[in-house]
Amino acid sequence: MSRLVRSARDVAHWDDTADVVVVGLGAAGASVALEAAADGADVLVLERAAAGGGTSAMSGGVLYLGGGTALQTACGFEDSAEEMAKYLRASVGDAPDLAKIDLYCEHSVAHYDWLVAQGVPFKPVFYYGVSGEPPTDDGLVWSGSERAQPFCDLARPAPRGHVPAMEHQAGPMLMRSLIAAVERSPVRVAGDHRVVALVRESDDTIVGVIASHFGQERAIRARRGVVLTTGGFIMNDAMLAAHVPAALRCKFRVGAEGDDGSGIKLGIAAGAATRHLDKASISLPATQPWGLKRGVLVDARGQRFVNEDAYYGRLGEYALFHAGGRAWLIVDDAIFEKPEYPRRVAAVGETPTEVARELGLPPGALEATLALYNEHAARGVDPVFAKAAEYVTPLARAPFGAFDCTVDASIYAAFTLGGLHTDVDGRVLDPEGDTIPGLFAAGRATSGLSVGGYSSGLSLGDGTFFGRRAGRAATGNASSRSS
Amino acid sequence: MSRLVRSARDVAHWDDTADVVVVGLGAAGASVALEAAADGADVLVLERAAAGGGTSAMSGGVLYLGGGTALQTACGFEDSAEEMAKYLRASVGDAPDLAKIDLYCEHSVAHYDWLVAQGVPFKPVFYYGVSGEPPTDDGLVWSGSERAQPFCDLARPAPRGHVPAMEHQAGPMLMRSLIAAVERSPVRVAGDHRVVALVRESDDTIVGVIASHFGQERAIRARRGVVLTTGGFIMNDAMLAAHVPAALRCKFRVGAEGDDGSGIKLGIAAGAATRHLDKASISLPATQPWGLKRGVLVDARGQRFVNEDAYYGRLGEYALFHAGGRAWLIVDDAIFEKPEYPRRVAAVGETPTEVARELGLPPGALEATLALYNEHAARGVDPVFAKAAEYVTPLARAPFGAFDCTVDASIYAAFTLGGLHTDVDGRVLDPEGDTIPGLFAAGRATSGLSVGGYSSGLSLGDGTFFGRRAGRAATGNASSRSS
Repeated sequence: MSRLVRSARDVAHWDDTADVVVVGLGAAGASVALEAAADGADVLVLERAAAGGGTSAMSGGVLYLGGGTALQTACGFEDSAEEMAKYLRASVGDAPDLAKIDLYCEHSVAHYDWLVAQGVPFKPVFYYGVSGEPPTDDGLVWSGSERAQPFCDLARPAPRGHVPAMEHQAGPMLMRSLIAAVERSPVRVAGDHRVVALVRESDDTIVGVIASHFGQERAIRARRGVVLTTGGFIMNDAMLAAHVPAALRCKFRVGAEGDDGSGIKLGIAAGAATRHLDKASISLPATQPWGLKRGVLVDARGQRFVNEDAYYGRLGEYALFHAGGRAWLIVDDAIFEKPEYPRRVAAVGETPTEVARELGLPPGALEATLALYNEHAARGVDPVFAKAAEYVTPLARAPFGAFDCTVDASIYAAFTLGGLHTDVDGRVLDPEGDTIPGLFAAGRATSGLSVGGYSSGLSLGDGTFFGRRAGRAATGNASSRSS
Repeated sequence: MSRLVRSARDVAHWDDTADVVVVGLGAAGASVALEAAADGADVLVLERAAAGGGTSAMSGGVLYLGGGTALQTACGFEDSAEEMAKYLRASVGDAPDLAKIDLYCEHSVAHYDWLVAQGVPFKPVFYYGVSGEPPTDDGLVWSGSERAQPFCDLARPAPRGHVPAMEHQAGPMLMRSLIAAVERSPVRVAGDHRVVALVRESDDTIVGVIASHFGQERAIRARRGVVLTTGGFIMNDAMLAAHVPAALRCKFRVGAEGDDGSGIKLGIAAGAATRHLDKASISLPATQPWGLKRGVLVDARGQRFVNEDAYYGRLGEYALFHAGGRAWLIVDDAIFEKPEYPRRVAAVGETPTEVARELGLPPGALEATLALYNEHAARGVDPVFAKAAEYVTPLARAPFGAFDCTVDASIYAAFTLGGLHTDVDGRVLDPEGDTIPGLFAAGRATSGLSVGGYSSGLSLGDGTFFGRRAGRAATGNASSRSS
């Protein structure tokens, strides 16, 4: 028998029991716990660290919400569930889970209200000019490629990055608020409990977990359900090597230590199907301040490969997976400014040819790219990659420079997007789409809304939204179980 | 309990029993069966069709072998296991299984001899000028990107496509020979048996299968092991949509009806880990006859994206996954010739501009690409994509034309490359890398040698080679099982 699954008949004694056992106390786990407790369930959260927070507390805290939330309205923006769904359907990758997207958009306004009701503070001020996290405590930002091609033609853009009121990185504020709400609730939280196995009945129902607590194993029974909210696997080199090896090359991995795929492995061992283990979000913050979007991003062939005004989650994906992690942002003296994230100047020259030679690009290639770009830019258009007109201007004033956007020398921020296959209520599914009784999951342990073309806030948004649904589903699961 | 796994205690009666039960009679299944039987095991092969053959019998029959096989030597080529391994390590995708590659190369000469000993005929004649399957019954061809950049700099090229003696498509000859060998052996074959579930003991050992036989369920016990050789999932739209949706766009799917992922799903339900379910081989046979390699393959930006002399398995991967399935092969009057595979002429014009306009490419883009290409080609070099000099010549003689290489209008031949995670002996592994006792797999039901950058013959090569190893391992598994 797998080390990750134990037979219930081998559990001599249960050390603790709850209706719902939640594994991990990040944003998803807190949301599961709060909703399950609100439904009257006795909830026990097992957190492997001493205290909750996880990757969510280390993040920018952005939640991708819309459809006309109170915050959007207060900031003077119109939005609708339909436009939000159109954007997400078009932008989140090749094989999006349409049922999840539609449900998420339909209930996004209410989900925002729920977060506020839990005590998450949002300042009703829109911050313009950054992608994702603002440097202030302002509440609303652009956090995706809504205004860039091809998305601006497919859905009416609206800013949907909802940021808890905290300067720079709002993840700590989000988690402080959610954990405070958990503390006000009857939910029990046990720190230093690392779940090492699921406990399975002879009929394959998951009925509990084995947790390691300071080296001692504790058997914990779940009367109604076990919910895995253990995060992704960006900290697990072996899993990255197996599924998304390019991510191993990224300098910056967005994840707490616990993001080692433990929950995903538990689910797989119990017979779960997975989705998109090969997918990662790769952020390349190369065009901040936004004036740098006027630059031209080229690959090792000296060719462009993406419209430079796309969100940095899309730039990174193209730079790593299409351009092989070899890219440079070409600027001229007119648009040069200091990048917000430190970035090496890889080459400077009086002509594009000098820059190209210094970068080792094929002779003539960068020159041809710039000549074509400038010819169109003189008329304010970019018919090749359809960058928005406000960022299109000829690059003609010497000196020219190249910002280093290679994966080896610059920040590519990575986290995994794939995980356990779940239905819209967090039920973990087997390869036939049947549920594994008693087993639920939410957050980055599942394959969620985005499997590519990342917009900031989709992980926390997805984890909290579908976490809440999983909490209610796990609680409602009582009828099928003995107590 | 999952529909795909039954508890042994629910099996009231075994309808049949064997030491080793093999699921599927393609090239992998035949190899498993022959080796297990040679080791003295009582082997029963269950085939869902009336007779064996499967996808292998519909294929080109090419086996990727090398290291100095008798066939290579007879045709006057030198090769070594080291050079073969260097090529495979570099070419088969981002996360190759190095242990499998090295073992495969080390024993490739012996594996060829084994195939010959089973009765597979190879004519010791080298056929030059096609990729993959020759139109004749000749035995040796180039079947990969060995002579193209970047591989020709990394490993000494040698032709490694070993083709059974049959004109055009040699798959039927391969399977006729292997099935004849099975028929000469004590192996039992039961047609019209579709395996619908694995049978699991309470300790999680797989001890048999449930097969559907003309609508009746039959329980078949495996004393030593069950070996899944059920193929990939190119015929399963739902699995493609979930894992590799781009493949759904391909006009031509390389697979028998049984390539619906059934064995992969059985393994997952039993707790197996998977690898690379997102990967597919995509062949775009656009440069045959080889003179067409002198053309320039461009995407919807009017940019090149791969060296045109790469093998068609690499062209297709780039065209579909990088260029979004929108590509055209630009030729001039000097190099124009009739393509071997029917291909629409999408545009003709007296100038590149006329062709570009007809294709709807961005103004000036194709012109810029051709100008740069021609400038270098005049000196016989291609510093941008490093196409071999023999295929580099300026495209300058009107009229110009564009062969349609879009996924919507031309042949992209697709099959899946991902599957169950196995060790080098075909043991199916769980997410911790532990074996699932009694469960083995080989062929396209597993993630094999290639997870990208396909060279023809790797599937049949891998399936037969690791199938043989799985057959021996399953037989040797006896000690851990009651009989």
